[in-house]
Amino acid sequence: MRTVFWENDKLNLIDQRQLPKTLAVVAYDDCADVVQAIREMVVRGAPAIGAAAAFGLALAARGSRSTSASGVLADLEAAAAQLKSARPTAVNLAWAVDRVMGRFRREAGRVGEIRQAVLQEAQRLADEDVEINKRMAQHGAQLIDTGDTVIHHCNTGALAAVDWGTALGVIRMAHEQGKFVHVLVDETRPRLQGSRLTAWELQQYGISYEIIADSMAGHFLRTGQAQKVLYGADRVAANGDVANKVGTYMLSLAAHDNHVPTYAVVPTSTIDLSLKDGSLIPIEERDPGEVLEIQFQGEAVVPRGARARNPAFDITPHRLITAIVTENGIAYPPFESSLRQHVVS
Amino acid sequence: MRTVFWENDKLNLIDQRQLPKTLAVVAYDDCADVVQAIREMVVRGAPAIGAAAAFGLALAARGSRSTSASGVLADLEAAAAQLKSARPTAVNLAWAVDRVMGRFRREAGRVGEIRQAVLQEAQRLADEDVEINKRMAQHGAQLIDTGDTVIHHCNTGALAAVDWGTALGVIRMAHEQGKFVHVLVDETRPRLQGSRLTAWELQQYGISYEIIADSMAGHFLRTGQAQKVLYGADRVAANGDVANKVGTYMLSLAAHDNHVPTYAVVPTSTIDLSLKDGSLIPIEERDPGEVLEIQFQGEAVVPRGARARNPAFDITPHRLITAIVTENGIAYPPFESSLRQHVVS
Repeated sequence: MRTVFWENDKLNLIDQRQLPKTLAVVAYDDCADVVQAIREMVVRGAPAIGAAAAFGLALAARGSRSTSASGVLADLEAAAAQLKSARPTAVNLAWAVDRVMGRFRREAGRVGEIRQAVLQEAQRLADEDVEINKRMAQHGAQLIDTGDTVIHHCNTGALAAVDWGTALGVIRMAHEQGKFVHVLVDETRPRLQGSRLTAWELQQYGISYEIIADSMAGHFLRTGQAQKVLYGADRVAANGDVANKVGTYMLSLAAHDNHVPTYAVVPTSTIDLSLKDGSLIPIEERDPGEVLEIQFQGEAVVPRGARARNPAFDITPHRLITAIVTENGIAYPPFESSLRQHVVS
Repeated sequence: MRTVFWENDKLNLIDQRQLPKTLAVVAYDDCADVVQAIREMVVRGAPAIGAAAAFGLALAARGSRSTSASGVLADLEAAAAQLKSARPTAVNLAWAVDRVMGRFRREAGRVGEIRQAVLQEAQRLADEDVEINKRMAQHGAQLIDTGDTVIHHCNTGALAAVDWGTALGVIRMAHEQGKFVHVLVDETRPRLQGSRLTAWELQQYGISYEIIADSMAGHFLRTGQAQKVLYGADRVAANGDVANKVGTYMLSLAAHDNHVPTYAVVPTSTIDLSLKDGSLIPIEERDPGEVLEIQFQGEAVVPRGARARNPAFDITPHRLITAIVTENGIAYPPFESSLRQHVVS
């Protein structure tokens, strides 16, 4: 099953907020609801929200009440702006919207043709996502040795893309190649994508894992209990600086301090050559409730009236990253030149 | 109110597992129950478990059914061994037990005198803890500038000691001196001592704070939003390597990477000159349930059958620490010599 798919004239999404308790698929027929679903993280993961946004445009085209091509165009432009603003950090969202809109703007067709073209482009983007992720997984699996314990941050599996995913796709491919891999799963506070989603996926694949608190990675790295660090990314700047789920920077520091190779696994659609370095990537700050609303062993945690901060991403400077895996191979430093080659190839 | 105190012939402990919901004091009249309370973290924090263990010996002396001094001695030796093994990382536990036992072994008295001497020594140790912590706080407060945002890990306040605490005592003293301080409170997974206990204490003191996930500290440090990092410790080796609540190492790495001063605040009873470096400090691994048993926004998190690891402490190498504050002043590198001076002075 895909995380994001089109069926019965509707966009279908696995509701990731309900996992691992319930595997529920929700159908959307209105673009505004898709914007909301992206914002509230029904769907999450850079490639997945890109694909969801592409199908969101297909819904906007179908939903437009306009009977003229220019009217549909205006409605689509409005939908595109809303979709792009749903979440700021992952560039795949803007990339997917721009790709579908680009095709649409070139079409000089009738309303029906435009609607068809938008849906076709969204479907193609989703199909390509799966194929790209498999290629990434094959390149990345070369970096994994049998017997490796890999520390993995956030969720980057099938749930974070249309299928297969990025960093977790690499781990899954290595496992399918018969390599024995053990995963230390960062729980990934505040929303716990690691302990909720990555643990669930690894169970499906039969891959050995243990959940750790994010703060424990340093201990395992320093005591020689982990041989690789893998994660995805939401945006990679031209110099190789990586914006990814908050905690990636501290994890990368700990890996670097112990000479443990650290790989970011991303489709080239995540690479934003227009940004010179990571300081230019916008960091989303989310609702403090995501930090405050947890219970420990059945009891509320924070005192009444407690306040919190909730930056959802951080920037890992490229000096801490050993290599960046894309669908076109493995990019090594200097990333300034190697990433450019990956994007254009 | 003290966290650890003797009243009505019983040891009284604030049950820290029930905070911030309920401020409950539990009375103990049996040493074996005190061992259990230390193990289950009814009482926690290196100085607090030291004081609790000292009073535990007083209970063991009172509870001994032996009528001869040698018989009471044997019972006390057994109790001492049990208390010391309750938790392995914090050296204060062994230090407090050894101090009380040392006094006891020197006494050639009758049973009643011995009982009295043990209780007196425990009471003296508890009183000294408060006085030592205030001196530490005064030394440490010199390091805090008005307007500082301080990142603080775990709980090191009054709850972690008999009163005042270590790193949080420094923050409280700076605040009482009229310096404006804002605290970014690491929630401190897995047991959340930061969001449960430190946030609660800061509210009592009227000190401005916000809770963050442990993994977010790097973002705030990298973006210039924090000027100091403060924490306590469970054991400091002769070379200045620090064993403290898991996550301290990654926090210290992030501070160091951004040239933010990082201070460990410890009584000299936490310094273990018998250990050359941090690699010799035993790291307690606790029940994986502490990682697994959380709920997020009212829902269980991990999939059924999930496994976890739970190292409770980590080692921060001394090269990442700017200075170590004790009751005798501020020790700067090279710690090999400066710590020794603090311990003997």
